Formats: sequence, C-alpha cells, structure tokens
Amino acid sequence: MFQSIRHSQWFSNLTTAIIIGYAIVLGIKTSDSLTGSFDFLWFYLDLAITLYFLFEVVVKISVDRSEYFKDRWNIFDFLIISITLIPISESEFMMIARLMRLFRVLRLFQSRPELKNIIDMLISAIPSIIDIVILMFIIFYVYGIVGSFLFGSLPSGLWDNLFISMLTLFRILTFEDWTDVMYEAMELNSLYWIYFVSFIIITAFVFFNLFVAVIIGEMENLRDKSSGSTLNVLGEKVDNENSKIQKLESEISEMKAMLKELVERERRGES
Amino acid sequence: MFQSIRHSQWFSNLTTAIIIGYAIVLGIKTSDSLTGSFDFLWFYLDLAITLYFLFEVVVKISVDRSEYFKDRWNIFDFLIISITLIPISESEFMMIARLMRLFRVLRLFQSRPELKNIIDMLISAIPSIIDIVILMFIIFYVYGIVGSFLFGSLPSGLWDNLFISMLTLFRILTFEDWTDVMYEAMELNSLYWIYFVSFIIITAFVFFNLFVAVIIGEMENLRDKSSGSTLNVLGEKVDNENSKIQKLESEISEMKAMLKELVERERRGES
Amino acid sequence: MFQSIRHSQWFSNLTTAIIIGYAIVLGIKTSDSLTGSFDFLWFYLDLAITLYFLFEVVVKISVDRSEYFKDRWNIFDFLIISITLIPISESEFMMIARLMRLFRVLRLFQSRPELKNIIDMLISAIPSIIDIVILMFIIFYVYGIVGSFLFGSLPSGLWDNLFISMLTLFRILTFEDWTDVMYEAMELNSLYWIYFVSFIIITAFVFFNLFVAVIIGEMENLRDKSSGSTLNVLGEKVDNENSKIQKLESEISEMKAMLKELVERERRGES
Amino acid sequence: MFQSIRHSQWFSNLTTAIIIGYAIVLGIKTSDSLTGSFDFLWFYLDLAITLYFLFEVVVKISVDRSEYFKDRWNIFDFLIISITLIPISESEFMMIARLMRLFRVLRLFQSRPELKNIIDMLISAIPSIIDIVILMFIIFYVYGIVGSFLFGSLPSGLWDNLFISMLTLFRILTFEDWTDVMYEAMELNSLYWIYFVSFIIITAFVFFNLFVAVIIGEMENLRDKSSGSTLNVLGEKVDNENSKIQKLESEISEMKAMLKELVERERRGES
Repeated sequence: MFQSIRHSQWFSNLTTAIIIGYAIVLGIKTSDSLTGSFDFLWFYLDLAITLYFLFEVVVKISVDRSEYFKDRWNIFDFLIISITLIPISESEFMMIARLMRLFRVLRLFQSRPELKNIIDMLISAIPSIIDIVILMFIIFYVYGIVGSFLFGSLPSGLWDNLFISMLTLFRILTFEDWTDVMYEAMELNSLYWIYFVSFIIITAFVFFNLFVAVIIGEMENLRDKSSGSTLNVLGEKVDNENSKIQKLESEISEMKAMLKELVERERRGES
Repeated sequence: MFQSIRHSQWFSNLTTAIIIGYAIVLGIKTSDSLTGSFDFLWFYLDLAITLYFLFEVVVKISVDRSEYFKDRWNIFDFLIISITLIPISESEFMMIARLMRLFRVLRLFQSRPELKNIIDMLISAIPSIIDIVILMFIIFYVYGIVGSFLFGSLPSGLWDNLFISMLTLFRILTFEDWTDVMYEAMELNSLYWIYFVSFIIITAFVFFNLFVAVIIGEMENLRDKSSGSTLNVLGEKVDNENSKIQKLESEISEMKAMLKELVERERRGES
Repeated sequence: MFQSIRHSQWFSNLTTAIIIGYAIVLGIKTSDSLTGSFDFLWFYLDLAITLYFLFEVVVKISVDRSEYFKDRWNIFDFLIISITLIPISESEFMMIARLMRLFRVLRLFQSRPELKNIIDMLISAIPSIIDIVILMFIIFYVYGIVGSFLFGSLPSGLWDNLFISMLTLFRILTFEDWTDVMYEAMELNSLYWIYFVSFIIITAFVFFNLFVAVIIGEMENLRDKSSGSTLNVLGEKVDNENSKIQKLESEISEMKAMLKELVERERRGES
Repeated sequence: MFQSIRHSQWFSNLTTAIIIGYAIVLGIKTSDSLTGSFDFLWFYLDLAITLYFLFEVVVKISVDRSEYFKDRWNIFDFLIISITLIPISESEFMMIARLMRLFRVLRLFQSRPELKNIIDMLISAIPSIIDIVILMFIIFYVYGIVGSFLFGSLPSGLWDNLFISMLTLFRILTFEDWTDVMYEAMELNSLYWIYFVSFIIITAFVFFNLFVAVIIGEMENLRDKSSGSTLNVLGEKVDNENSKIQKLESEISEMKAMLKELVERERRGES
C-alpha cells in the first residue's frame, strides 16, 4: 500500500500543497491582530502538519529504504523533520525549530527547471567565489586585528574584539554610515583615515575582481559550447573536402599507373 | 471627415503637443507660488484637455472600429481616458486619476526607435528576471516570517507583520541604515547578526547572478548573429572550393576513361 | 618671431608647467593657515598668470589665424581666458571665473594616449547613454510631478516643487536615507510605499540596462575587430588553397587536351 | 647544517604554522577579557616569535646569499622583520610595527595556485586602473579646490582644506550621507546642488567605464587564447588539405610530363 502512495502524483502534490499552505498560514500569523484568539486552532494545525510530515518520511523510507538517503533533498527533509520532533521546552528554540520547516519551500525549485538553471549557475560560480571568500577572510582578519588594537578603546564599542571589529568592517563594506566610524577614529589620530579608505578601496577592488572572474568564467563555458556548434559545421565541410581530395589522389595514382604502362609500351614498341 | 482627420499628420502631432504641453503645465503647477491665483484658468484648461482627449478617442474609434482595440497603446489610452471621465468627488482619487494622464507621455517612446530598442532589450531580459523575482520572493517571504517571529516585539515596529517585515528587508537590501535595524535586533540576542549578514550576502549573490545571467543571455544572442556573418564568408569560400574540387573530380574521371581506352587499344594493337 | 615661439617645444611645456603649478598653488591656498599673510603675493601671481595666458592666446592666434578656432581645445582655452579677463567686481563670481582656469588641467589628457583611449570609450558610449538619459528624464519628470502633488504638503519641504522633487528623487536613486523620506510620506497614506519601491526598482532596472547595453556595444566592436584578425589567417589559407586548386584545374585541362589528341591519333591510326 | 634546514619541507611548514598561529593568538588577544592576566606570557611569546623570524631570515640569507634578495617575497619578509627589530619605545608605533608581521599571512597566497590566479588577474587589470586613478585624481583635485573655495567657511569643517575636501568627496562617492553635505552647502546658494550632482554623475560614469574597460580587456585576452585553440583545429585541417593538394600538384605535373612524352613520340612516329 505504501508503495502505491509513495509513487502516486497526488502524494507529492499534497506534500507541496501542505508546505505552501503552511507558509501562507505562517505569513498570516505574523499579523497578531488577525490571529489573536486562534492560538488553540493553531496548536492543532501545527500538530497535524508535524504528523503529516512524519507520515511522509515514514512512507518514503519504508519504500525507498537505503535509496532514500542518497538524495540530498531527502536528507535535507529528514534533518528538518527530525529537528521539529525534538521536544524542546524553551520557547525561542522551539519557534526557530518550527520555522526551519519553512525551508522546505525551497523544494519548489525542483519543479521549475529555469530556477534549477539559476541554482546551477550559482553553483558553477562557487569555485571562483571560494577563493574570493578566503581572500576576503584574510583581509577582514588582518584589518579586524589592526582595528581592534587601534580603536579598541573607543566609546562606541564597535571595535571591542576581533569578531565585533569584523562585523563593523562588514558594515563599512556596505558603506553604511562608515564616515561616522571613521570620524570617531580620526579623533585619536588624524591619519587613521588611511585605514578606512584603504579598506574600502581594497575590498571594492576584490569584489570587483570576483565579478569579472565569474563573468569571464561563464563566457568561457559559453564560448566552448558555441564554438563547438558554429565551427563544427565549417569543420565538417573541410573534412568533407579532405575526403574528396583523398578520392582524387587515388584516382590520379590509378591514372598515373596507366600512363606509365602506356609510356613503357611505347618505348618497347619503338625499340 | 473623421477619416481625413484620423490619418492626418497634424492630428497625431497635435495630440503629442497637447500631451507634452499638459506635462509642462503640470510641472509648472507644482510650484504653488507661481500659480496661486490661476486655479480658475486651470479648471478650464483641465476641462479642455479632457474634452480633447475624449474627442481624440471618439475620432479614432469611429474610424478604426474593431481595429482600434487591437493596438495595445490604444487600449492603454482608452483606459486612462475612461478613468479620467469617472466623476469622483473625493479630491485625492480625483487628483491621482488626473495624474494618470501623464503616463500618456510614454507614447513618445513610439516615435524614437533607439528608445524602442532599449525597451526591447528590457523585455528580452524579462525571462531571466521572472525567475530571479520568484527566487527573491521566496527568500523575502521566508526571511520576512522569521523576522516577524524573532523581532516582532521590537519597539521600532519594523517587524510588526509579514508585509512590514518584507518592506524592512527591502530597505536592508538597499543598505539603507541597515545597521540600526541590526543593532536593535542584537539587543534581544547577540547572535541575530547572522540573520542580517546572511540575508545581505544571499540577496547580493542572487542579484549578482541576475546580472551575469542577463549579460550572458545578451552575449548568446550577439554571438548567434555575429558568428552567422563572419563565419559565413569563410563557409562560402569552403563551399566554393568544394564545388571546384567536384569539377576536378568529373574532369579526372573523364580523363581516366580516355586513358583506359588508350591502354586497351595499345593492348589490342600489340596482341 | 612669434612663429618660432609658437612651434617650439619649450613654449608648450612652459604652458603645461604653469597650468600644473597654478593647480598646485591653488591647492596649497585652500589651507588658510599656510597662506594667511601672502595675499599680497597671491595678487601678483594671479596677475602674472592672467598675463601669461593672454600672451599665449595672442601668440597662437597671430600665428595660426583662422586655423586657431578649428581646434576644439583652442576654443575651450579662448573661452576660459576671456571669462577671466572680464572685470567683475562681485567677489563670488570673480572667484568662480578664476577657478575656471583649473579646467585647463584637462589639457593634460592630450599628452597621455591611454587617457585619450578612456575618453574615446566614454564618448563611444554616449549614444546608449543619451537614450537612457531621455528615459530617465521622463521617469523623473512623471514621478516628480506625482510626488509634488502627493507629498507637497509635507513639512520636510522635500517635495515643494517639481525641481526639488526631482532632486529628492535623485537622492532616493542613490539610496541616501530614502527610508526617512518614505516613512514621512507613509504617514499620509500607508500605501505610498508603492511610489518609492516602484521608483527604485524601475530606475535600478533602467541603469542596469544601460550597463548591459554599453558592455554589449563594446563587445560588438571588439568582435568585429578580432574576428577580422583570427579568421583572416584561416581565410587566407583557404584562399591560398583556392588558387592552388585553380592551378590544378588549368593543368588538368591541358592534360585532357593532350589526352584527347592521343586518343584521336590512335583512332585515326587504327582506321 | 643550515643548508639542510633551509630546503627541508618541515622548515617552511613550521614558518607557515607559526605565522598562522601568531595571527590566531593576536585575534584572541583582541578580546581583553580573555587575556587580561596573560600579559606576562604574551611578552615571552612575542619575543619567541621575533627570535624565530630572525633565525629564519639568517638561515635563508646564509644559504641563498645574493639570490635571497631576488625574490620579492623575501624582500617583503626582510623589511617586515627589520621593522620589528627597531627598538622603539613609543607604544603606538611599537604596536603598529608588531602588527606589520600579520601581513606575512599574505605568504599563504603562494601555496594556493587559485589565489595566485586571482592576484594575477588583479595585476593584469592594473594598467586600465592606473589611467582611471589619474583621471579620478584630476577630478578629485579640481572638485576639491572648487569645494574648498566655495564651502570652506561652512561650520561642519568638511571643506577646511584641499585634503579634507578630497576626503569629503570620497565620502560623497560612496553616497554616505552626501545629502547632508549638499543641504548644508545649498544654504549658501541654492544652485550648489549642481556641484554635488555633477560630481556624482561624473565619477559614477568614470568608475563605470573602468569596469567596462577591465571586462573588455579580460575578454580580449580570453578571445586570443580561445580562438587559438578552437580555430587551430580547423587551421590544421586546412593545412593538412593544403599539403595533400601540393602532393596532387606534383603527381599531376609528373603525369603531364609523361603525357608530353607520349604525344611527342606519337608525332614523331607519324611523321
């Protein structure tokens, strides 16, 4: 019975519908005025969804068995549903665990191929990005330490330790009120603008480079594919020509053999 | 008579002139000091323009009849003029209805072909953009719900419900005082910076991807066109060669036949 | 005598040196503490530079005559020097007129060819940019009028008339505290966020498009040039082949003629 | 003995480990609460690292001798270590000198080839960037002087001298609260918005151009390489064809010689 349920279209559609429905209900729940008195109903709805998701996992595992954990999406689902089942009393973690379910919405990506293409492109850009992330981390780390030592005593508390310094540097990277941070630091020493201006120029430059690297990378892929198609037609024509010339060669060598015979006979005939 | 009016150049020029004139008059009207006492004149001007636009629509429909509604620009005009005619007393809606007419300025796009090219390019980028919009909406929705639940109690009221949360997220996307929002949230829990930094990195990454996708898409179009032109010249040359080689083949096979005849005759002659 | 001065290298070098020196002196003059008591000296320096520039123009015109005004840089110089000579007493305009001379620094662009390339690229991007500017102006104009009518009564005075509204829209375009402007407007009607969010999305989209258009345009130029070079080598090889095949054709047709002669002789000999 | 140490793998690994360890320890040191009482330990650690770095330099120089200073990384190391050894009492400079060591982390770039590629790309973009920097400097300089003269008297002190003006212009370039600066200046003269808006448009335009120039430059490199690979295959095929045709030519000329002999013999035979 589980087998027929597992592979039926309506089962997968129902799961999708419940996920979307859950997302919509959660969205409505955010405006307290609307849902104030429905907390009782909400409790049962939440329970029902938990049970349905549990049922879904049980059905899938009992049918697919060891195959189940070979699909990355299934592992993703399993982890999220497991987290929801952990009985945690502290309300905040409980809530976050419950909100984790929302990420099942990302499953919708599977059904729309265009979205998958975008994700694929993002994934193909990851190698260039990892290097940039390493580079950025080193820059943030060095500037973070220098910043902590130079500005750690400032009353704003933006440079209290390495971690907070790195968060402040991220803020500077987004140009968010970075001059306030700089003007405060410049009260210690009027040369400290060098720290901020150099950081902005270096990181802007690195990001800029990331951008160019990804575009060039995509371009290379595109070129390989396209030159494959347009030049191949030409290549075939040239190959075609080559084989014709080869035929000519064999015909001409046959003719040459015949001519040789003629010439020899003539010579013999004369002598 | 309507027919000759409808297809005359001055009629379409007059309409354009009235639209531009209307836009200029409205622009002048925005500085109250200049127009304070002309409200009386303004009333008649407004009436005259309403009547002219009505006259224009009547002329066009009476001539083109069912053809009229096949042009998207005509439907656009018809709707705007209809809205202006609805007698609405409430001043604010009245004003907005009247301002709707301004959008007829967009008609000018038709007359300048370069502007049309830009619009066409924008339209050709829409498929990539729709996918990004779906992706962005999912990200905004999930982050909006999580934000509402986590920060809904904050006094700034920036996370009161899902909609306001999504507007706040749009603000964060533009880096507009996002650290103020973050620092307020971090008073609840110092780990909440993860929410903001992850949102900025993810959305920046998605937008970045949109950008690359559109450039690559345009590149592909360009390549298809251009490789068509430059490689075709080469292709023709190769085709030309191919046909010459074919002629050679036939000549050589004729020669071979003649040679065969010669050889056979010689053999016969000898025997 | 003027002729030899006009075409001598040191004359053009001296002019360049004086322009750069003037820029440096003006730069130093900005820090009042340094130059407080040198106003007397400054007066004579200013007079000397004015006279030198006047001398330069007289030399050039007396030698080049009607040719002088055919170079755009000369017209530019002539206008700036003429403005400086107008005796204007009001100090502010006097100062601006004097600062105009600074723009002669732009002359340095002529001497460095790489900088000229950049300027050329900027100029070649102008056609795409003009269309975008027209499009942006229409968007700013329509949004400016709507903004003036909707928010004209707000106490911040950011929408007082069409011009100020357009300046405010430019500010929103740079994301500069745009939420402050929006939150103020939303106190009138909570739906007014649509005005701001739509403006940001539309203008960002148009700028984005400008960017893509220019890159694609440059790409097209590049492609035309480069496909000219790499494909030409191949094209030459194919042409080379073509001419060889043509030689083969003529040789083979000669051979055919000879064969025909042989065959006919044999036939005659037999009969 | 030094020779075996110098070329052993563990020596270079140990140096890398000490550099990374030093960076981590410095990072921990930034949070004062953790390290308050360890200043004594820290003193000895610092001494140990100074001695190790000194030892490393001595080993390398004693083995490589004059070769040592031919590698740019070695010069970089040598300078940093020399600075650390200068006995400077003033605590702030002491600290900065010590922090300089952190830049040895950049050595890690050598070990990861992908990072080296990124650095190479950055370096290859430098020619385009130098021109832009010159252009930007001229724009900043001219706008800085004009700004100092026009707004030098403003109470905010953002235009006090040329240098501060240029820092303020950098701030405007990042859109950081630039409207505050503009609104202050517009109190002097309501036309001064032209200064700010023109500066933003010009610099945005120049940066935009830098971006396009670098992408196009990289594209050109890519094209040269790739057209080298895909077209070469075709080129080889065509070359191959060319040599076959050459063989045909020689065969045909041999055949022609034989035919000529035949024809001459026949003619002689007849006469």
